[in-house]
Amino acid sequence: MVQDRPFEDIIIGERASFSKTISEADVYAFAGICGDFNPVHVNEVEASKSRFKGRIAHGLLTASLISTVLGTALPGKGTVYLGNQISFWAPCYIGDTLTAEVEVVEKREDKRVLVMKTRVLNQSGKVVIDGQAIVMKP
Amino acid sequence: MVQDRPFEDIIIGERASFSKTISEADVYAFAGICGDFNPVHVNEVEASKSRFKGRIAHGLLTASLISTVLGTALPGKGTVYLGNQISFWAPCYIGDTLTAEVEVVEKREDKRVLVMKTRVLNQSGKVVIDGQAIVMKP
Amino acid sequence: MVQDRPFEDIIIGERASFSKTISEADVYAFAGICGDFNPVHVNEVEASKSRFKGRIAHGLLTASLISTVLGTALPGKGTVYLGNQISFWAPCYIGDTLTAEVEVVEKREDKRVLVMKTRVLNQSGKVVIDGQAIVMKP
Amino acid sequence: MVQDRPFEDIIIGERASFSKTISEADVYAFAGICGDFNPVHVNEVEASKSRFKGRIAHGLLTASLISTVLGTALPGKGTVYLGNQISFWAPCYIGDTLTAEVEVVEKREDKRVLVMKTRVLNQSGKVVIDGQAIVMKP
Repeated sequence: MVQDRPFEDIIIGERASFSKTISEADVYAFAGICGDFNPVHVNEVEASKSRFKGRIAHGLLTASLISTVLGTALPGKGTVYLGNQISFWAPCYIGDTLTAEVEVVEKREDKRVLVMKTRVLNQSGKVVIDGQAIVMKP
Repeated sequence: MVQDRPFEDIIIGERASFSKTISEADVYAFAGICGDFNPVHVNEVEASKSRFKGRIAHGLLTASLISTVLGTALPGKGTVYLGNQISFWAPCYIGDTLTAEVEVVEKREDKRVLVMKTRVLNQSGKVVIDGQAIVMKP
Repeated sequence: MVQDRPFEDIIIGERASFSKTISEADVYAFAGICGDFNPVHVNEVEASKSRFKGRIAHGLLTASLISTVLGTALPGKGTVYLGNQISFWAPCYIGDTLTAEVEVVEKREDKRVLVMKTRVLNQSGKVVIDGQAIVMKP
Repeated sequence: MVQDRPFEDIIIGERASFSKTISEADVYAFAGICGDFNPVHVNEVEASKSRFKGRIAHGLLTASLISTVLGTALPGKGTVYLGNQISFWAPCYIGDTLTAEVEVVEKREDKRVLVMKTRVLNQSGKVVIDGQAIVMKP
């Protein structure tokens, strides 16, 4: 469901989140869209010998859940992405349940711009990625 | 194809790229993975009334092509994403042909880390996104 | 985004909706899940000679948008489908933009059950399907 | 395979069926088409705490197998869906093998309409859904 939060009503400190278990089908479909067939994503034999000991999701797949929160909840409908910064801290394995969280940390009233603190956690509460997003709400 | 460039051989200024026409199926599959059904991506009636005048790809879909170059060409196999910064400059419409380019701008020998300048252009040479990626090559 | 409306707060007459342009990729993926490769859905040559003059979406694909409103907005998270009745009035062509609407018409407090009037319209306001859904909100 | 049964040859009591094991990929692709990311379908952590104790298929995904029998076997090619009524009795878990069955219970010769009793069973013979479909065979 796509929510639509008016820019005027959004306050600093406001939060929203979205959760999903990342399936093998997600990782394979993502590889099929972008063409990143790095063995660590789609080759179980090689991935199991790597530092990760198994296939992991693409970093930008985990980051895409943040875009879901921004585009469908806070600030929701019509959101325009201006900038995005991410640090990758831990891998997301096939079968992990991720929760993407965003929090409003700054409002630039004149340009209708929001700065959001972002992070994605796994089912154990471990930080998979964190960063910052800058969005405009027309 | 997944290439494997030894860290030692990579030089500053080296480049690689990857191109793809973004289809409606790509945008719909991406929405289906991350759950971002913002109307600007999947509702032609609403999108045509928006500032974009039509459906556009998710920002992180356009960014995912950069990850493809990093993970399959330069530095290729085994690449570990440490950080990623992106600015969004122009929309990618369904049917646009994108070219993602990366260029090595810094080498940190001791940690086997590379800093890459990244950008994605459309078929008219317009910059869709640009930014920087930090990767490790084990 | 998945909303969660407490049963107690829901009132008769309340409404929610969800919109999406139905792509060829949607129809093909749906056929690939259920195995319904009826030519009217996946064979343009035959479909163009049929009464519909072109490929149309599966009836239950159009109906699935109703399930989206029920499961993610009203009553949202945790919704259990008990029953569903649909009448099919008009075809949905590839490229049509559908809007699924639900409205609460009855509340059965003791069993936490809601009866919803449902319908799906296309971009011209034509009724594609209508019917009724019975759901429980635990 | 798409069969084509002439309306004239179809007799009351005639049956057809279709079976498939429902994969995680099916459930995730279905969510990706309709946008229903209710946690009970795509979040193993939350689903395992729900009354269902794990992720289940969307109700209309299970129902779509009935449409497959109608559109590809009985009455097959060219079938037009007029109406559909379903009751949901039991969940379908990822990995369950479903069998959708239809049986002709009424023929309306003048309008070339068939009334079909429908149901979907799981691998244990438990009724997942049952109902009725009304179709026209041109």
